[in-house]
Amino acid sequence: MTELTAIGAAAKRAAFALANAPTARKNAALLAIADALEARAAEILAANCEDVEAARARGMSASMLDRLSLSETRVRGMADGVREVAELPDPVGRVLSGSTLGCGLEMEKITVPLGVIGIIFEARPNVTSDAAALCLKSGNACVLRGGKEAIRSNTAIARVMRAALRAADMDENCVCLIEDTARETATAMMRLNGYIDCLIPRGGAGLIRSVVENATVPVIETGVGNCHAYVEKSADIAMAAEIVFNAKTSRPSVCNALETLLVDEAIAEMALPVIAARLAEKDVELRGCARTCKILPQAVPASENDYAVEFLDYILAVKVVSGMDEAVEHIRRYSSHHSECIVTRDLNAARRFAREVDSAAVYVNASTRFTDGGVFGLGAEIGISTQKLHARGPMGLEAMVSYKYVLYGDGQVR
Amino acid sequence: MTELTAIGAAAKRAAFALANAPTARKNAALLAIADALEARAAEILAANCEDVEAARARGMSASMLDRLSLSETRVRGMADGVREVAELPDPVGRVLSGSTLGCGLEMEKITVPLGVIGIIFEARPNVTSDAAALCLKSGNACVLRGGKEAIRSNTAIARVMRAALRAADMDENCVCLIEDTARETATAMMRLNGYIDCLIPRGGAGLIRSVVENATVPVIETGVGNCHAYVEKSADIAMAAEIVFNAKTSRPSVCNALETLLVDEAIAEMALPVIAARLAEKDVELRGCARTCKILPQAVPASENDYAVEFLDYILAVKVVSGMDEAVEHIRRYSSHHSECIVTRDLNAARRFAREVDSAAVYVNASTRFTDGGVFGLGAEIGISTQKLHARGPMGLEAMVSYKYVLYGDGQVR
Repeated sequence: MTELTAIGAAAKRAAFALANAPTARKNAALLAIADALEARAAEILAANCEDVEAARARGMSASMLDRLSLSETRVRGMADGVREVAELPDPVGRVLSGSTLGCGLEMEKITVPLGVIGIIFEARPNVTSDAAALCLKSGNACVLRGGKEAIRSNTAIARVMRAALRAADMDENCVCLIEDTARETATAMMRLNGYIDCLIPRGGAGLIRSVVENATVPVIETGVGNCHAYVEKSADIAMAAEIVFNAKTSRPSVCNALETLLVDEAIAEMALPVIAARLAEKDVELRGCARTCKILPQAVPASENDYAVEFLDYILAVKVVSGMDEAVEHIRRYSSHHSECIVTRDLNAARRFAREVDSAAVYVNASTRFTDGGVFGLGAEIGISTQKLHARGPMGLEAMVSYKYVLYGDGQVR
Repeated sequence: MTELTAIGAAAKRAAFALANAPTARKNAALLAIADALEARAAEILAANCEDVEAARARGMSASMLDRLSLSETRVRGMADGVREVAELPDPVGRVLSGSTLGCGLEMEKITVPLGVIGIIFEARPNVTSDAAALCLKSGNACVLRGGKEAIRSNTAIARVMRAALRAADMDENCVCLIEDTARETATAMMRLNGYIDCLIPRGGAGLIRSVVENATVPVIETGVGNCHAYVEKSADIAMAAEIVFNAKTSRPSVCNALETLLVDEAIAEMALPVIAARLAEKDVELRGCARTCKILPQAVPASENDYAVEFLDYILAVKVVSGMDEAVEHIRRYSSHHSECIVTRDLNAARRFAREVDSAAVYVNASTRFTDGGVFGLGAEIGISTQKLHARGPMGLEAMVSYKYVLYGDGQVR
């Protein structure tokens, strides 16, 4: 048995007991973890300091260093995040439906944990406690595998959480961390069928693709957001400018940020200069189709690839389209099916866009930035699913369970 | 673009239109398909006859030949199956929940089709029409790939269905069949990300394993049933004998048939002879642990492997266990998480078994044979999921959809 299999087996054993743990016990463990994170912040920060030094020495970019770095405040934020999860309703043991079958069997469909959830993530150490808390609350053991840049931080955070679990009289293997950061180990983890029930990658497009390509364990794809706004010909131009400005610039690095603007040709000459002027306040680079460049001299020509990628930056692809057909077709072709919006005053256009655009969240006259578990009333999220199997859009605790049928009879045979 | 990719692209295009087809149109197409299957039965039977002759010449077993063979009655059964699907409620467009968010956005969570469903199956040609009907009703295009033994039958059935779709003014590519039966083509189909949204293998353990191993498209594992009955020490022995007899012998070839019997040591000497006598009526071979063989001289010693496999035959593995702990542990280790039952008069034992055994269907005092979409009130089923992601247990139309969030606003930004 390899070390990885041993971790999988330990997590699986822990998951059996955790699956039926009462809500109060799980909450007590979560509060113990939160307290421990704060009490042992110095130890976590010392480890993080080493990670940050090493990353800086290797020339990591400033924005990546910011994601990697912890502080007293950030550790407190992690602890508060765990406390918030403790306050969410327990998703396990809910009776989703029930009936008495013709033969007299009494049937209930009851939520149960998924079992062991594998989380593969990159350089953000706070994912360690965020993901572990959501898994614990939903009765799932977790096997965490973070990026090598954050290994010292992750190891310290996992050590603190596991000690808190032991102190709360829970199996420490409810939270497992793979400390071996070799790429082969990550690949082996993706194929740990029989131990890991579900894999959730959290990170950029490259990580997601690697997991989809290599995993034999069921995967939930998350987080890649090539989001579109379509300014339909009846749109209120001022509203369109505000929505596009907000969706693009309020936080460009997140997955629900806008990446491509589509404008109806009937309104393009009026709308584009207004929208561009608003975006100029934040120095947004515009990459446009030929017609866009004609209307906006400041735009540079867009390549095919500009419509296909997430910029995650102050860059926006722009295209003038002949109408709804072309807008919907463009979105079908390039979207990652995360979030899209239409700006319109026309009822039929709104209804058609909502019906025909097949993304996790479709907005009429609102910014794509609202796609978020907290905003949607789902609580903290483990990720935003861009696939259609199992869960779609923001995944809160309710997306982290399965169900089983329990049937009581008195000797029924068929 | 390879032929396979071309099929995927055609199915994807068909899926876009089908996703928003009104229920009445989908039902009309289903009825047209049913009528066409009956009207062109001779053509289907002629093709099937060639398949059966070829298979017989290659020495196919009698039971496999029976699965492969169609008749007038069986074709009528296929047509009636399609008509039954037309009568089921449409799973698309249901509002699962809705609310007005704090910012005033009006949000609805609405069911939508998965898109394109790939079905990989073996030698039963009736799967072609069954699966296509369920996909069509749930707004999904399908790409079917059956075993090479049934290729002439499947091609004929698909041709009839596609002609009926055209006649009903629907895109014939709502139902696509891959006529190339090379193994590499099946493997390529399993990796057709971007065209196929979800893959459902229907067949034996070998097929399922191959799909899980090779697919990069999300998969729903179905149909492998290593099912257990646990006769607890307080059990009504006569009831236990009837349940075990029914679960094992009423249809041994199906996935919800019983494969292993666990008996509490406190009751084994009394219960095993009664159960064995009932099973002897159907000449069931018993493969037992050492203690079983001591009580039942007719039992042969079981190997470790006998507890791990689906016999799908008149064979039953038997084990005497020391109590609930060992029973639950044995089931955790060997079960495929399909269906298990306990026979007991003890309330705590019943509740504990229902809680701790983590299978799609857990029965108290009833046969495992009830695990079936029709019995559960779900209508016809596309398969019985043995995984926990997306859907579990019998998958009816409701398991063949995803959802999206639609949000209406009036200029909200974040």
